[in-house]
Amino acid sequence: MAQRYVRVKTEKGQTYYGLLQLNRSVQVLDAPPWLQGQPTDLQLPADTYQLLAPCAPSKIVAVGKNYANHAAEMGTPVPKEPLLFLKPPTTVTGDESNIFYPPQSQQVDYEGELALVIGERCVQCTPKEAQAKIWGYTIANDVTARDLQKLDGQWTRAKGFDTFCPLGPWIVRELSAGARIQTFLNNFNQPVQSAFIDQMVFPPDVLVSYISQVMTLLPGDVVLTGTPEGVGAIAIGDRVCVEIEGIGQLQNTVVARTIN
Amino acid sequence: MAQRYVRVKTEKGQTYYGLLQLNRSVQVLDAPPWLQGQPTDLQLPADTYQLLAPCAPSKIVAVGKNYANHAAEMGTPVPKEPLLFLKPPTTVTGDESNIFYPPQSQQVDYEGELALVIGERCVQCTPKEAQAKIWGYTIANDVTARDLQKLDGQWTRAKGFDTFCPLGPWIVRELSAGARIQTFLNNFNQPVQSAFIDQMVFPPDVLVSYISQVMTLLPGDVVLTGTPEGVGAIAIGDRVCVEIEGIGQLQNTVVARTIN
Repeated sequence: MAQRYVRVKTEKGQTYYGLLQLNRSVQVLDAPPWLQGQPTDLQLPADTYQLLAPCAPSKIVAVGKNYANHAAEMGTPVPKEPLLFLKPPTTVTGDESNIFYPPQSQQVDYEGELALVIGERCVQCTPKEAQAKIWGYTIANDVTARDLQKLDGQWTRAKGFDTFCPLGPWIVRELSAGARIQTFLNNFNQPVQSAFIDQMVFPPDVLVSYISQVMTLLPGDVVLTGTPEGVGAIAIGDRVCVEIEGIGQLQNTVVARTIN
Repeated sequence: MAQRYVRVKTEKGQTYYGLLQLNRSVQVLDAPPWLQGQPTDLQLPADTYQLLAPCAPSKIVAVGKNYANHAAEMGTPVPKEPLLFLKPPTTVTGDESNIFYPPQSQQVDYEGELALVIGERCVQCTPKEAQAKIWGYTIANDVTARDLQKLDGQWTRAKGFDTFCPLGPWIVRELSAGARIQTFLNNFNQPVQSAFIDQMVFPPDVLVSYISQVMTLLPGDVVLTGTPEGVGAIAIGDRVCVEIEGIGQLQNTVVARTIN
């Protein structure tokens, strides 16, 4: 099994990067692993911590319509170049946390996606250079208020609500090119999305290279690589699971939005 | 003259928040002023520091078409609700720094704007509550690759290039409701944009309240309030100045983009 890199919050409220062990204890690191974090003496036993999103990105750059069959189901052509948008860092939440359903929307959709975690400052990189700056891979749900997306034209509000970017549960360093991505809604026997990572229109190295021609990517930043066919609505009370072969499962529950 | 709140970098590369004095020395604070930063014993003489953007936002939330005459010049109606978009934090640069002209664009425009700096966590606020969370005011240039904005549909790339958000030179706590905003391009005798802040379609308290219904605003975050009529192209070698009465002048030079 591949090493799993996590970020956790302890019962005392401290936040650490760490290595998840098979017995579910966490070996704490003294810095994020992409900043050469080294193991400390601190070991957190299972059930004494909460998993957070495995990184704390300064920005989340996402890509629209990066699977041909999803572009088709949205009734739009595949873009000639990657179509970029941003989700604010306040959208990030972890595995087993809640997605808050905002009262402004009547149609909130799941979008299961592969997320890339950047390890090094990346500016004007070739695809080959970009590949070397992808530190690892995790799972994301690019939650989208579909009605507001159509209403606004710009996607910022529709994709920018607090908790609209579940991320995790951990990062792995390597991913098989042909890994399967699936999304499950309440029923774990029947996926609502099912595709292979290598069906992307623009693969990870091309995406990161393209973004780096526009904006500098920083260590810990996240790139969302687009969702395959099969997007659909979630409702309060639903349980959503995005699974990527070789990484694991990201699971969240949809709840009504309350005042924080 | 109102107190001017700055962020500076010393010759040794250290970054501080501080108070700019009339003799151009800087009284260093021990934290950002909106986090109750207090004066320290450290005083930086004039010419020993560089002004940075006066805050380091975790996000920059901007608003499109918030002056009726600018919406008209773009050939579009005034939105019924604020139209939100994001600029990544890597767009931020300071007064007297360079705007890098990207090779992907053949038309880069200036957009002079009032910027709001958030002082406190702001979530689901009324306009009245939101007003109390606006810590101060500074000046921004929402630099935009107009050709890419039209090409992409989504505005992220067009508005997201490194250095596309000059911000500064400092923050003031109070602003007259009827303050004039002007932009100058090379010629300081003839403004290319000239309007009054109170001509905004959605005023600052309404904008911050609206955004806070979608995403949590954090201390140091920035809200750009839209640009008035008169946007136009900049070229390599140009000098751009955005001036707001009661704040000051934000000046930048346009240069060719080079590898960082």
